Amino acid sequence: DYDNLDKIIIGVVGGDGIGPFITKQAQRVLEFLLKEDVKKGRVEFKVIDGLTIENRAKCKQAIPDDILEELKKCHVILKGPTTTPRAGDQWPNIESANVAMRKELDLFANVRPVKVPEENIDWIFFRENTEGAYALGSDGIRVNDDLAVDFTVATYEGSYRIIKAAFDYAKKSGMNKVTVVTKANVVKTTDGLFLDIAKDISKDYPEVEWDDWYIDIMTAKLVDEKRRSQFKVMVLPNLYGDILTDEAAEFQGGVGTAGSANLGKKYAMFEAIHGSAPRMVKEGRAKYADPSSIIRAAGMLLDHIGYTDKAHRLQMALDICGDYEKKLVLTGRDNGATGAEFADYLMETIRDD
Amino acid sequence: DYDNLDKIIIGVVGGDGIGPFITKQAQRVLEFLLKEDVKKGRVEFKVIDGLTIENRAKCKQAIPDDILEELKKCHVILKGPTTTPRAGDQWPNIESANVAMRKELDLFANVRPVKVPEENIDWIFFRENTEGAYALGSDGIRVNDDLAVDFTVATYEGSYRIIKAAFDYAKKSGMNKVTVVTKANVVKTTDGLFLDIAKDISKDYPEVEWDDWYIDIMTAKLVDEKRRSQFKVMVLPNLYGDILTDEAAEFQGGVGTAGSANLGKKYAMFEAIHGSAPRMVKEGRAKYADPSSIIRAAGMLLDHIGYTDKAHRLQMALDICGDYEKKLVLTGRDNGATGAEFADYLMETIRDD
Ligand SMILES: CC(C)[C@H](C(=O)O)[C@@H](O)C(=O)O
Ligand SMILES: CC(C)[C@H](C(=O)O)[C@@H](O)C(=O)O
Repeated sequence: DYDNLDKIIIGVVGGDGIGPFITKQAQRVLEFLLKEDVKKGRVEFKVIDGLTIENRAKCKQAIPDDILEELKKCHVILKGPTTTPRAGDQWPNIESANVAMRKELDLFANVRPVKVPEENIDWIFFRENTEGAYALGSDGIRVNDDLAVDFTVATYEGSYRIIKAAFDYAKKSGMNKVTVVTKANVVKTTDGLFLDIAKDISKDYPEVEWDDWYIDIMTAKLVDEKRRSQFKVMVLPNLYGDILTDEAAEFQGGVGTAGSANLGKKYAMFEAIHGSAPRMVKEGRAKYADPSSIIRAAGMLLDHIGYTDKAHRLQMALDICGDYEKKLVLTGRDNGATGAEFADYLMETIRDD
Repeated sequence: DYDNLDKIIIGVVGGDGIGPFITKQAQRVLEFLLKEDVKKGRVEFKVIDGLTIENRAKCKQAIPDDILEELKKCHVILKGPTTTPRAGDQWPNIESANVAMRKELDLFANVRPVKVPEENIDWIFFRENTEGAYALGSDGIRVNDDLAVDFTVATYEGSYRIIKAAFDYAKKSGMNKVTVVTKANVVKTTDGLFLDIAKDISKDYPEVEWDDWYIDIMTAKLVDEKRRSQFKVMVLPNLYGDILTDEAAEFQGGVGTAGSANLGKKYAMFEAIHGSAPRMVKEGRAKYADPSSIIRAAGMLLDHIGYTDKAHRLQMALDICGDYEKKLVLTGRDNGATGAEFADYLMETIRDD
């Protein structure tokens, strides 16, 4: 619990491409909101450089050792997008830094809320974040020219803790409804385990209604405007969570509008879920990149470490400026205003609050 | 090629639940359209009973040997929905009959068209149908109480032939656009192979534009009303195909509206993509089940074996009756008319054509 800490250390990881530019703006906003607490020594920011694709490629590590050590000295982390090497491009076959960080810091719960108030949509996804199709990362086996194998791994503990977290949240929040999403009719061993555990856990939550659907049907159900608002808390193995949350975010305005919380027992990491947009950097337009998604992630971070009120004020300012942003075409794509100007405007809005 | 055959044998497999009821109606419609050819001995129907969950459970086989033998005597198959055993329910851990049939008859291409004319959506999905996450079926490994593993398998040949089929179709149809969907940033070995092969094949089709996206982002892109009609031919590994086609069908009116062609070098199987609805049978309402989806599949079958004109006439009648059906609430759910009455009405509509 953060209340018992003398000092909360917030790591700030810029990442690749536009990452350092937008992360910098999110840090400014956090510093603005936490000014007093920084002065009192309650909060400290620690900028961690070097989690770049060039550096990772040089070390041939998804997260170089010295950076991992730095990360482990923080209590919570705000992370910009990191470039993931693609099969066949110029980088070595290293794992995504995102995926590696989730595993190394045991951030087992990827929690992604999606809200569309006009439609009564209030979804919260609990995506398992450390195993499943992601467990062995780059370590599939290319048996020979003709044959390739990848592995999906589920453990009892890994499945248990994410499902438990979803049921706990459903109960605590009063949503009282959990939907378990698997493909247990085909991926029978790992997803079968996941579903069995869900059945067991559900017995301890008589007040929480629950159902289960296969991922294929679930992607269709989210499209169904008449019925989709019935879903509340959803819990899914890693890959299905990856897929379904991107679809879901689109109803809210796109992945650019969604922040993502990666939570573990010891650490927590908050990130934007869009990419590093290397093209913007190449074209010299990085300073125009829209920082609103990572600022939303910063808001989730504030809430997580106990600054509920500040998180709320930031959220309100973001909602106001988001509309403003749309109206005045302040987005990076149109070069209307820089990320720094957007952050300035946002801070003024908070100040006036 | 079917033109060179003396006689085309059409296998009709009822399956489970409402399957035999709706398949019967589809067979009536086919017999009506092919009356002359049946008389001349050009076409023969062969009803294959016993592909039921009870029988499969008794034999502990996804497809009992004697039924498989019968299936192999047919040239094309019309198949009703079959119940897939669920982890933990009363059935033994056998594979889905669908999945087994695709593998046993080597039906490597699952082709699913989705059209929304008002929106200019004209998608056609080429789903790899025999390997990927489906390769080993029930044969994951439950290492111990704590650990479960499933396997994803891709072969060069398996990936090659489905990607080639997609590019061929894109070229032949004049669509000239292929989108390759993988998760090669995480499932690096098998999806990496798939993407590499796509890159190679694309070189032989200079006139076909192509791009590639990850499955998570792709589910979001299909939601984007402004841009989704840009997609034409899509080709995907098995599991992503399963997921994305269900989402896509929803824009067209739901899985109930989509037929599915499972094509191989030697055999072809056509099916509805909805389930067996055991509850309707239990409640004595099976005769009210809506047969329009399997009749659509029957239309794809007609087209496939060379009866293009008859397929077209059936399609037109279905479109007319589909609207009528909606208006007069003829669907099974509402017990407005039986499946047989719907088929009667449909045949009258064709006759009047
Ligand atoms: C970049 C990629 C490896 C990552 C994932 O697959 O988890 C991303 O899609 C996400 O959802 O955070
Ligand atoms: C029933 C199930 C095994 C099947 C699949 O996963 O392929 C179905 O969803 C489909 O798309 O035909």
